[in-house]
Amino acid sequence: MKQEFRKKQPEPELDALEGQLEGRNAVQEALRSGRALDKVFIAAGDTDRNLSRLAGEARQAGAVVVPVDRRKLDQMSVTHAHQGIIAQAAAHTYATLDEVLEAARAKGEAPLLVVCDELSDPHNLGAILRSAECAGAHGVVIPKRRSVGLIPVVAKASAGAVEYMPVVRVANIPTALKELQEKGVWVYGTAADGEKELYEADLRGPTAIVIGNEGEGMGRLVRQTCDVLVRVPMKGRISSLNASATAAILLYEAVRQRR
Amino acid sequence: MKQEFRKKQPEPELDALEGQLEGRNAVQEALRSGRALDKVFIAAGDTDRNLSRLAGEARQAGAVVVPVDRRKLDQMSVTHAHQGIIAQAAAHTYATLDEVLEAARAKGEAPLLVVCDELSDPHNLGAILRSAECAGAHGVVIPKRRSVGLIPVVAKASAGAVEYMPVVRVANIPTALKELQEKGVWVYGTAADGEKELYEADLRGPTAIVIGNEGEGMGRLVRQTCDVLVRVPMKGRISSLNASATAAILLYEAVRQRR
Repeated sequence: MKQEFRKKQPEPELDALEGQLEGRNAVQEALRSGRALDKVFIAAGDTDRNLSRLAGEARQAGAVVVPVDRRKLDQMSVTHAHQGIIAQAAAHTYATLDEVLEAARAKGEAPLLVVCDELSDPHNLGAILRSAECAGAHGVVIPKRRSVGLIPVVAKASAGAVEYMPVVRVANIPTALKELQEKGVWVYGTAADGEKELYEADLRGPTAIVIGNEGEGMGRLVRQTCDVLVRVPMKGRISSLNASATAAILLYEAVRQRR
Repeated sequence: MKQEFRKKQPEPELDALEGQLEGRNAVQEALRSGRALDKVFIAAGDTDRNLSRLAGEARQAGAVVVPVDRRKLDQMSVTHAHQGIIAQAAAHTYATLDEVLEAARAKGEAPLLVVCDELSDPHNLGAILRSAECAGAHGVVIPKRRSVGLIPVVAKASAGAVEYMPVVRVANIPTALKELQEKGVWVYGTAADGEKELYEADLRGPTAIVIGNEGEGMGRLVRQTCDVLVRVPMKGRISSLNASATAAILLYEAVRQRR
């Protein structure tokens, strides 16, 4: 499954699309966050009030607004749900681990991070960014290779969270986890045979939650690097939750414990 | 926002593709074989006798027959030979509310249900089925109309949970909620302005969790029918979680409380 995906959407192409924002939410959130947009393509002719307003805001923010044929938008679209608007933004800027930890400290909060180990489904990464933002996490870590990047499908699935949530792109996940551990962060992985039930883990201190790949879970080295492996109780007949559901459950268990 | 989305991608398109049967022969054979059909879209206006007969048979077999513009059928069509009729086959047989409550009782457990109010994204419904199965919920309730059905995209996103999780399809969600309430089930809706924080709600008794539509949340009547409106804490700048993330968080809060 994952192999197929990789074969058909090789990394360089994915990266080239990083600056493209599709859909009204994505463009609206980019404008709201002050992210610079180069060009904004809107469907010519059938602009409704919402679309006109967005175009006006984009123009005010310094973007060149280009009315184009809807068919042209369809061609440009990667998500196939552009809702009449596609924007080209400067490629996403990434944060560093230190910046993320510093931002948490500046807020007087214990750092809360999500580390995604080679996620291949852009909807999952987008959903995790969204849940992380809602839960007040300070950053999301993704690997440079063997992972989906911040492409338009991710931005759209994140419902705009990609504009607010600092993302750290690292060369190597185990190395990043070790760096976090040296800086006092506890690393929690999830595994069906985890030694602790989720609700017994203390997520109130500096915490990194590791989410494994959709099909294979965490890599061996990543698993070995975790301080604690927790298990989410499985009450039914299927053996695992969706990666983004797991992230949401762990993030909100941290929210609950930190109240 | 959601309104716009609906305008451009009406229900038929969202439901389309994998479970889709096109053309008179295909639909006739499906009916003959007793395969359950969720929805049958027929060309409005220019129905000939054959088409009317097929529509009648589909209705008798429990399908919702929706007359649509021929142009809409053209848009939905993958084969480009729909002959005025496109059907969506169910991947599943449906349960009743009583069966679900009885199954919980037989296990000696307080019923735990998820009620989906007009979800339009098949990935969300699939993910909710998966999380519900993992959390040991006893059933998922969906409405007959204005909701994606158990099409193959849903089955796939459910990672097989659709085979195990009883699904109840009801004509009317508020009526179903009232029936549940009469049978002792507490109905919890989620809302940004909910009166209780999630973690203060008691989910240990018989519980139905209502998940609203992706764009608009719960309908007014559904909202009014809920016993308690809970809010999931929002710590960031975007205002809402994904529908399936919300479901996962509530389901696992119930799991935590019921330990």
